[in-house]
Amino acid sequence: MTLEKDAELKARAEKVIPNGMYGHEWVGLLMPGTPQFFSRAKGAYLWDVDDNRYVDFMCAYGPQLLGYGHPEVDAAYIDQLQKMDVGTGPTAHIVELAEKWVSMVDHADWAMFCKNGTDATTMALMAARAYRDKKKILIANGAYHGASNWCTPFPHGVTDEDRAHFISYTYNDVESLEAAVAEAGDDLAGIFASPFKHDVFTPQELPDPAYAKRARELCDEKDALLIVDEIRAGLRIARDASWSLIGVKPDLTSWGKSLANGHPISALLGSEKAKEAAGKIYVTGSFWFAGAAMAASLVTLKLVEETDYLERMISMGDRLRDGLDEIAKRRSIEISQSGPSQMPLIMFPDGKGGYDMDIGYKFCTGLLGRGVYFHPWHNMFISAAMTDADIDLTVQAADDTLAELLQVSAA
Amino acid sequence: MTLEKDAELKARAEKVIPNGMYGHEWVGLLMPGTPQFFSRAKGAYLWDVDDNRYVDFMCAYGPQLLGYGHPEVDAAYIDQLQKMDVGTGPTAHIVELAEKWVSMVDHADWAMFCKNGTDATTMALMAARAYRDKKKILIANGAYHGASNWCTPFPHGVTDEDRAHFISYTYNDVESLEAAVAEAGDDLAGIFASPFKHDVFTPQELPDPAYAKRARELCDEKDALLIVDEIRAGLRIARDASWSLIGVKPDLTSWGKSLANGHPISALLGSEKAKEAAGKIYVTGSFWFAGAAMAASLVTLKLVEETDYLERMISMGDRLRDGLDEIAKRRSIEISQSGPSQMPLIMFPDGKGGYDMDIGYKFCTGLLGRGVYFHPWHNMFISAAMTDADIDLTVQAADDTLAELLQVSAA
Repeated sequence: MTLEKDAELKARAEKVIPNGMYGHEWVGLLMPGTPQFFSRAKGAYLWDVDDNRYVDFMCAYGPQLLGYGHPEVDAAYIDQLQKMDVGTGPTAHIVELAEKWVSMVDHADWAMFCKNGTDATTMALMAARAYRDKKKILIANGAYHGASNWCTPFPHGVTDEDRAHFISYTYNDVESLEAAVAEAGDDLAGIFASPFKHDVFTPQELPDPAYAKRARELCDEKDALLIVDEIRAGLRIARDASWSLIGVKPDLTSWGKSLANGHPISALLGSEKAKEAAGKIYVTGSFWFAGAAMAASLVTLKLVEETDYLERMISMGDRLRDGLDEIAKRRSIEISQSGPSQMPLIMFPDGKGGYDMDIGYKFCTGLLGRGVYFHPWHNMFISAAMTDADIDLTVQAADDTLAELLQVSAA
Repeated sequence: MTLEKDAELKARAEKVIPNGMYGHEWVGLLMPGTPQFFSRAKGAYLWDVDDNRYVDFMCAYGPQLLGYGHPEVDAAYIDQLQKMDVGTGPTAHIVELAEKWVSMVDHADWAMFCKNGTDATTMALMAARAYRDKKKILIANGAYHGASNWCTPFPHGVTDEDRAHFISYTYNDVESLEAAVAEAGDDLAGIFASPFKHDVFTPQELPDPAYAKRARELCDEKDALLIVDEIRAGLRIARDASWSLIGVKPDLTSWGKSLANGHPISALLGSEKAKEAAGKIYVTGSFWFAGAAMAASLVTLKLVEETDYLERMISMGDRLRDGLDEIAKRRSIEISQSGPSQMPLIMFPDGKGGYDMDIGYKFCTGLLGRGVYFHPWHNMFISAAMTDADIDLTVQAADDTLAELLQVSAA
């Protein structure tokens, strides 16, 4: 495995891009030797610029739901592109797509489309505040809801005032949620929640139904809006909003990443109650109404409804989880596998209540060298394009890597 | 001219989209009878869902620089889409595109790419604040710099704190700028400026070089960053930053809309001085690193460098301006035409120092019925796909419309 071309590009990039790259796809916080630049992708596979192939367990950090380069989805994009993409108004697809979402997602009575996930969470924030002209917003500690100045997880370029009126609480902790609501007093605009806890560097947690239900009740009591941020998990948990599985209906849900299987579109969905508020806020973007991504999204949602993509993803996730559990047992090592199996986070407990990131990085490095792209501290994504053979290759690569690591540590 | 299908779609849209539509392409603030939905576009023309054809002077509110469906640009998009679009990392295009911008734009030593114009202005805001850990930002009254909670022009869903540390000044007014800088004291992070004043509902103003130079001096004196927001005007004024024409180099420029002739991409460019600050802020988006729009942008920039697209746009703009001036003179009516001719704003003075919006709306309605899409209060955009025949058709339509309006008002 060589990364020569990648190194050349990194050197060129350093000159013309701050740090040579930025954002969630910057490999500066990953293992040395992680490729930064890629040249092609198909189905479950991604090739770096040096033509090394990987089974890609990041799926572009979520957008690849059905696999890279899905022929039916991409054909719809190209067909609409040739008619009209961005124009002086939308195409009929915006209506069809809103109708489709309303029919698919039980809590939703309307939809608005945008580009970034952050657009959708920002619209949720603003709609919640516009709803009853209240200001306080509850956000779970450590939750990621985007990267604008009001929500980016790092402090640079952010003022204290950008976070005024935010109150934090602990995910899945009813007492903490109640205390935060009490702190908001009569000024509670909304509660943000992720469908499950998928924070970085820490095991994922499925939602405690008692917490989700209490969030719903508290919003009803205070006439505030319950916002579930589906950007990362949406369409990977259910064919409806994720909390449909535990019987809780949000007022607003923000969606992104996977809606058009990689084409750029995100969305805010809402209940009738929130429609007037959503209609008051002024939000827009140059490319929000472009038809091609909407045409691609309509096909993606059709495939979501008509195929077993979700059951396949869960089955592949389970196969991976079982395979790694078997290795852990056989080799007497502890592997933490958390979250839904189709959105796995894999870390190595350090025996002191924390996680050994050094082993995590070495594990991922070993996998990279064996043609598997894993992430050491961010949840991963299974796509419906993965096969038993891809998972088996991955489990074998994991076993070989761990064998090597155990040999080194024993030496 | 029938709008039957448009009306049907509007009725369906009302049910599943707040107000039936939102943002800058919502026709709720335009003339009754303005089509909301479109079906196809090519070159200078746009067809609504009822198959009425318009010479489109909005160019999708800016993205269409070379005309709709440019074959070479779109072929580059589709070719890259078939290899890889969004992935777990960028393609080599991000490096090539950053290099291209740095070579084209004199002030720029680096580039970062994003999706919305608002992404680029938000990054500029954050980078300016990160630069020396200062907070105050100067923004001209009435200027539009995007639609996130910190910058949207309407108050709903926005808190006072979102605008804390913003100080307003009057565009082109040196005294007002100096007073705002004095108010910022030792906490000045940056000054935002548009390349020219292109606010809605008011005549456009070209930049007074004395104002632009003073903004540069004040930023230097205070060690703050000068930000020019090129999202609307970029590539329509110069093949470099717009203020290159008046000899003023910004530290940061935000670009959007036209960079890939309609494909979704925007950018922040910066000087070496601002590179460290830009590298500190955490900003990202699910689709920011997608290769297809970057491939399309590389071709667009090649055409920007190698063709006379700019001279053509200016020539078409001049032809329109001259044609309308001739009509105004011949018919003894006053028509206000402001801004660069290739980004015209056309309004009707009311003789009392204001503008007669009623005539403006009726004028645009008359043009719509004659196959020309004009805007009554937002600057318009000439594309390089427009021909003498398109402009002559437009001038004739304007003359016929005004003849009709004068006849009605005389009756």
